[in-house]
Amino acid sequence: MASRTDASQKTDPLEELAHRFAATRRLSLDLVATLSDADASAQSMPDASPAKWHLAHTTWFFETFVLRDHLPGYRLFDSRYPFLFNSYYEAEGPRHARPQRGLLTRPSLEEACIWRAHVDAALQTALPDLPPAALALVELGIHHEQQHQELLLTDLKHLFAQNPLGPAVWEEGAIASEVAQISADSGQGALLWIKGADGVIPVGDAGGGFAFDCEGPRHDALLTPHALASRPVSNGEWREFIADGGYRTPSLWLSDGWAWVQAEDVEVPAYWRDGQMFTLAGWRDIDPAAPVTHISFFEADAFATWAGARLPTEFEWEAAAAPLDPLGGQQLDTAGPVQPRAASGDTDLQQMFGSVWEWTGSAYRPYPGFRAAPGAVGEYNGKFMSGQFVLRGGSCATPRGHCRASYRNFFYPHQRWQFTGVRLAKDL
Amino acid sequence: MASRTDASQKTDPLEELAHRFAATRRLSLDLVATLSDADASAQSMPDASPAKWHLAHTTWFFETFVLRDHLPGYRLFDSRYPFLFNSYYEAEGPRHARPQRGLLTRPSLEEACIWRAHVDAALQTALPDLPPAALALVELGIHHEQQHQELLLTDLKHLFAQNPLGPAVWEEGAIASEVAQISADSGQGALLWIKGADGVIPVGDAGGGFAFDCEGPRHDALLTPHALASRPVSNGEWREFIADGGYRTPSLWLSDGWAWVQAEDVEVPAYWRDGQMFTLAGWRDIDPAAPVTHISFFEADAFATWAGARLPTEFEWEAAAAPLDPLGGQQLDTAGPVQPRAASGDTDLQQMFGSVWEWTGSAYRPYPGFRAAPGAVGEYNGKFMSGQFVLRGGSCATPRGHCRASYRNFFYPHQRWQFTGVRLAKDL
Amino acid sequence: MASRTDASQKTDPLEELAHRFAATRRLSLDLVATLSDADASAQSMPDASPAKWHLAHTTWFFETFVLRDHLPGYRLFDSRYPFLFNSYYEAEGPRHARPQRGLLTRPSLEEACIWRAHVDAALQTALPDLPPAALALVELGIHHEQQHQELLLTDLKHLFAQNPLGPAVWEEGAIASEVAQISADSGQGALLWIKGADGVIPVGDAGGGFAFDCEGPRHDALLTPHALASRPVSNGEWREFIADGGYRTPSLWLSDGWAWVQAEDVEVPAYWRDGQMFTLAGWRDIDPAAPVTHISFFEADAFATWAGARLPTEFEWEAAAAPLDPLGGQQLDTAGPVQPRAASGDTDLQQMFGSVWEWTGSAYRPYPGFRAAPGAVGEYNGKFMSGQFVLRGGSCATPRGHCRASYRNFFYPHQRWQFTGVRLAKDL
Amino acid sequence: MASRTDASQKTDPLEELAHRFAATRRLSLDLVATLSDADASAQSMPDASPAKWHLAHTTWFFETFVLRDHLPGYRLFDSRYPFLFNSYYEAEGPRHARPQRGLLTRPSLEEACIWRAHVDAALQTALPDLPPAALALVELGIHHEQQHQELLLTDLKHLFAQNPLGPAVWEEGAIASEVAQISADSGQGALLWIKGADGVIPVGDAGGGFAFDCEGPRHDALLTPHALASRPVSNGEWREFIADGGYRTPSLWLSDGWAWVQAEDVEVPAYWRDGQMFTLAGWRDIDPAAPVTHISFFEADAFATWAGARLPTEFEWEAAAAPLDPLGGQQLDTAGPVQPRAASGDTDLQQMFGSVWEWTGSAYRPYPGFRAAPGAVGEYNGKFMSGQFVLRGGSCATPRGHCRASYRNFFYPHQRWQFTGVRLAKDL
Repeated sequence: MASRTDASQKTDPLEELAHRFAATRRLSLDLVATLSDADASAQSMPDASPAKWHLAHTTWFFETFVLRDHLPGYRLFDSRYPFLFNSYYEAEGPRHARPQRGLLTRPSLEEACIWRAHVDAALQTALPDLPPAALALVELGIHHEQQHQELLLTDLKHLFAQNPLGPAVWEEGAIASEVAQISADSGQGALLWIKGADGVIPVGDAGGGFAFDCEGPRHDALLTPHALASRPVSNGEWREFIADGGYRTPSLWLSDGWAWVQAEDVEVPAYWRDGQMFTLAGWRDIDPAAPVTHISFFEADAFATWAGARLPTEFEWEAAAAPLDPLGGQQLDTAGPVQPRAASGDTDLQQMFGSVWEWTGSAYRPYPGFRAAPGAVGEYNGKFMSGQFVLRGGSCATPRGHCRASYRNFFYPHQRWQFTGVRLAKDL
Repeated sequence: MASRTDASQKTDPLEELAHRFAATRRLSLDLVATLSDADASAQSMPDASPAKWHLAHTTWFFETFVLRDHLPGYRLFDSRYPFLFNSYYEAEGPRHARPQRGLLTRPSLEEACIWRAHVDAALQTALPDLPPAALALVELGIHHEQQHQELLLTDLKHLFAQNPLGPAVWEEGAIASEVAQISADSGQGALLWIKGADGVIPVGDAGGGFAFDCEGPRHDALLTPHALASRPVSNGEWREFIADGGYRTPSLWLSDGWAWVQAEDVEVPAYWRDGQMFTLAGWRDIDPAAPVTHISFFEADAFATWAGARLPTEFEWEAAAAPLDPLGGQQLDTAGPVQPRAASGDTDLQQMFGSVWEWTGSAYRPYPGFRAAPGAVGEYNGKFMSGQFVLRGGSCATPRGHCRASYRNFFYPHQRWQFTGVRLAKDL
Repeated sequence: MASRTDASQKTDPLEELAHRFAATRRLSLDLVATLSDADASAQSMPDASPAKWHLAHTTWFFETFVLRDHLPGYRLFDSRYPFLFNSYYEAEGPRHARPQRGLLTRPSLEEACIWRAHVDAALQTALPDLPPAALALVELGIHHEQQHQELLLTDLKHLFAQNPLGPAVWEEGAIASEVAQISADSGQGALLWIKGADGVIPVGDAGGGFAFDCEGPRHDALLTPHALASRPVSNGEWREFIADGGYRTPSLWLSDGWAWVQAEDVEVPAYWRDGQMFTLAGWRDIDPAAPVTHISFFEADAFATWAGARLPTEFEWEAAAAPLDPLGGQQLDTAGPVQPRAASGDTDLQQMFGSVWEWTGSAYRPYPGFRAAPGAVGEYNGKFMSGQFVLRGGSCATPRGHCRASYRNFFYPHQRWQFTGVRLAKDL
Repeated sequence: MASRTDASQKTDPLEELAHRFAATRRLSLDLVATLSDADASAQSMPDASPAKWHLAHTTWFFETFVLRDHLPGYRLFDSRYPFLFNSYYEAEGPRHARPQRGLLTRPSLEEACIWRAHVDAALQTALPDLPPAALALVELGIHHEQQHQELLLTDLKHLFAQNPLGPAVWEEGAIASEVAQISADSGQGALLWIKGADGVIPVGDAGGGFAFDCEGPRHDALLTPHALASRPVSNGEWREFIADGGYRTPSLWLSDGWAWVQAEDVEVPAYWRDGQMFTLAGWRDIDPAAPVTHISFFEADAFATWAGARLPTEFEWEAAAAPLDPLGGQQLDTAGPVQPRAASGDTDLQQMFGSVWEWTGSAYRPYPGFRAAPGAVGEYNGKFMSGQFVLRGGSCATPRGHCRASYRNFFYPHQRWQFTGVRLAKDL
């Protein structure tokens, strides 16, 4: 990341914030550059949202919590938009039903972009005079938009995968460097076990930079002796699980997982079909050396049971990741058809950051002493703390700079349209 | 209709067919002229289809049943399209699931239009040499496309009505002549009772022109003494029904209808809200003198019970309509925001053709001696002959020239997104 | 029927009514004689009701419409029962939800029988002094109870069929004369075509005896030249349909029927499994010569299409049945495990009454001039006149004396837990 | 517990096991003594089972895992029963669908009891010669049956509550000592905060007695400074929550909880209506001083948020309970209409054992080093470790002797038909 090496030149925090705001907003537009108005407006399932909606919702966040709340005299660009583009903030009043988002053919993609430009300009103008509380919300809004960039990519992937034509979001030319190259040496490195630290270990956000509320308070965790796999499980290993009847053996599965497998006729990871997998560049061969992705928690857990291992806890993962560079690994730098690639084959911990989100065995619950922030932005994380599991480390679709060792992502155990994978752990 | 007055000049049937083919194909394009790619691609409910899908499906019909089957050496424009754009023809193989049509953001609206142009050119070129069986299929395809023109309009209306912004398919300027002008004299003509013929009456297609298979065979029907209302029930009369508790009185309703009212919380016709109604030109005041529309069979039947009347049978309607001009009345001539207008106030039967489809009390079942045509086009009508009711007379959204006295439309008793209305009947 | 041979002795209509009331009430008790409290209380699907509920609901009918409404000073046996045992009479106020009937373990079967005895005694005592309107309701109540006797049997059959133990409602000894004897001569008579009357034919209730309101008014129907099969379709013929891929050939099916076949994975008639069929006496071999039963309208229609025939209209059936004895055939005389038997092999119309209800091609709609009776009993028939098809002729489970030529039964086209079958018709 | 005071006399472990086996089996029969066959056979929701099913399933457990697996030559009482009465043990083969349990009117309650007697006799006869592994399964079976005794009571309560007659499982006489006496002093003791231990604390089964696999391995947990409420939240306090709009304030609720409140129209705890609550003795007044019960995790969590507190973790609870007598408190000793009563008003921790199960904030997940037992009984606990939350301490319906400090019960966060309550905790 250039922004690190030349940090000495970006001494003005306000300028730096303005720069990151602009860069983040620009990347969102880059991500939709190849889309038609229809591509950007369709919704393929209630869990997903149209690309246009992501563009608009992130704009709503800045307009509402920064401009409306902190810029005296600011008038909403369109007073009807908050109803349409509020996601789940109860404190902000009623809102459009989530499963109906694909019916909003108006405003158009172009109109949404005009709104974006208006808000961007207003915010950049206002920035120098904003109070610290508003600047913190700009910072929050940048990280919020980065989350939506990843969702935008995974939602697009889901939408395009429903089309029998199997269209690519990005065409051939763009792919070479990113998607599904079969690993040159036809195999990933051997999976090694790396011993982790045990005993009382401090975890959680240590301050000194941006973090979401759910990453704190920092506190001690007690780790038992254990080891982590040196890299995530690969597609080739997953095929062994399939060949061994993994999807047909109830004793490997959690009860809810087995019910899900049967109800949904699950036999392979999402987007696998006939020996190929669907990517943002269309249908591609499966690289046996690349990390398996688009698996649910239930699948990750069943695989671990089959392998005689278990999932790591979120703190085992965090303790191992703490000394590593969160800016490393395969993460999102520019718009394009991202897909996880094989690990390098080194013998230490690989692909902790980027590549695939790693399911942990930890339920997503509050840390000791957690209190949600007051007001609407307090609805950001705390209210989702039931029924979901923590994932760690970011993926190839996570904007570089967004993730860190204390970062907690969370999804329901059956969900698998994100770039989710699994790293094994075992007791020592 | 000009085409009638100068019929003497259109002596060549082939030329006339080519002319009607071109005009029909052009009207479909006119109907989508104001739409964005997103507007044309979204699907608001499983019963409805995207506008783009209608454009493509009607093209598939001509390409499959005329060009593929009757033009030696014809190659499909795109071999993947039949899977996408077959609607329900089992004999034509598997097809894309109906509720997923809104996820086909590719091919784009523009690509669909290119396909249209290709097929149109090929068909026009081939026309002079086509055998009679193929010409009959061109004729069938024209009528088929007219049906889809009406569905395209009603599906668009449904889609745009879901948008909280209440956008218009056609903007203000277009509306003056068509939509929701409050009747100048603030009231429709009085409802009169017109005695119908009774005894044995021949009904069904008498030959001599195009008709769908379900309109025949021509046969005798036995009518009992009865009268028909001179015009459809108006919005003003419907408001009396509402004010009298019509939607809250179970004794007025069929059992299935009452279950529907309760399950769906039905209190007004579709598209009514806060004293206004949604039209293809956006939200408009309700004209009390205009025919009520967007009502289900259940509502029509309950209203008739409330009014001490009943629905006409399909043959009572047909006997009354037989001497009337099927080209008269408010029907679709050009693209625009159609909406039924008040009757003229004459004292004879009014608005039998056009304005609103009239629910009859007749279940949609085969006529004596009916046999579906062999092959795929035989799936056109016969297989729908259970659970639906017959509607007669066409609507303001029916392309002029499409309807006739023997024409049988059919929908399920709860459906009401078509321009459906009701004309009362009573026993004498 | 003894009641016929000694009719001369039953000259007093009141005495005759008292006699029939007692006999009907007794038969209901006979039908549940072998049931446990649990057997009588369970509900196997929303369409079905517990046996105990049938006993109680028919009692509610007499207590409400006769005793409460016509016996001054009568006090309800238990004021909480009307809420529990009203079926669908909106005019009688709110009522227990139908799908919850199986949760009413109290009152017990014994308590329900005590209520029955109480109401029976009160009604018999009151009978001599009841006004004609009340006597008409007693008559209606008898016919109402006979309908519930048939439902009680078919609901029990459905319940017991859900039990993997396959228990019999009636044990072996009872079966010899009724169930599933393989026909001695291993084959039904050949199916012959019997020409029916055509032209204008009077149909509907001619008066002179009890009839439900929906059987009238008597009116003329116009029949086209046709023939009816001499007997219903047999199990052996149905096996040919299956062997010929009948259940896998979409072109044979109505569209709604094909959707039902696919959604429910229908491959055989209800209660068929592994070459056997479930009966009220448990699992039995299938007699190829006996009429097929437990088929839906959709199946009946598909079979007719496969056979190059069609279903009869309800008036074709009625015209043919009018001269026949409605007391003949295999109908319910005493409690026991009824099941349709093979036809005798005569060459005229056989099994028109009894054996199996015959699906007609006629939608259940009102006759010309039909008006439902005022008040609660007016909800009896008219409000069900949408979406259902007419069946004619009664079955082996219909109490003898209940059916007649003008009798109209009706069910939805997918329902098949009644003793439903099919007689073919064809155009001449 | 007599068994404690005279423990010196029960020196033979085998005799003691035989004694407890007999007593446990007898209590199950006592619990159904007042039920009719119908009461015992009905199923009110998929989560619940008929009482008869509980009697049969617990018998299946002993017959299968003890007699079949460890008694050479034992023949199953009825080879069809395992299919019917296996609950969820995949390794034991296919089984009857859970939601269909209420349709098994056969075998009858009496037949189920005959099976019980047969298995009891066989097991008592075999007991002296059984190998240790089989004796361990007898022990497991006893604890298993105790769990089903509690479920039997709560399932019965749910069933009877569905009946509009509001019948009592036990009649008036039985109630005086147990149900819903309004507390004499019209108020519970003040809620006090009791400081808990913090730092590293050993938790989990310490060995030396029976425990389920999920209670181990024993391990260290790290507790932060905190306090627990001296007693569970009372009905009176819950009414304040309701009065303050607790059920209408989204900011108090987890997101999934708020969705549940809206979907189910939740406004009060289960079984509350019109100021009364349904009990096993019928409808009763609500004692404001008694612990609130039949609340979901979602409600417990929302209440804690409203109260400015939080739920305890399962280890905070366990650390506080470890020194207390698990045989104390209001637990199930004999058959009767149990209902939690007000706390005594002492100033230390009250009602930790018995009264109501206490929701904790801990997701039900495996302890470090947990491995499920091999074979079918290994399906007992481990496979349910996703999506559920831990409850601690037993309830008034838990057989005395069944619970202990390390005991982990678990339910989904929306479930509330158990005797569930909530004890608050707070950070210090």
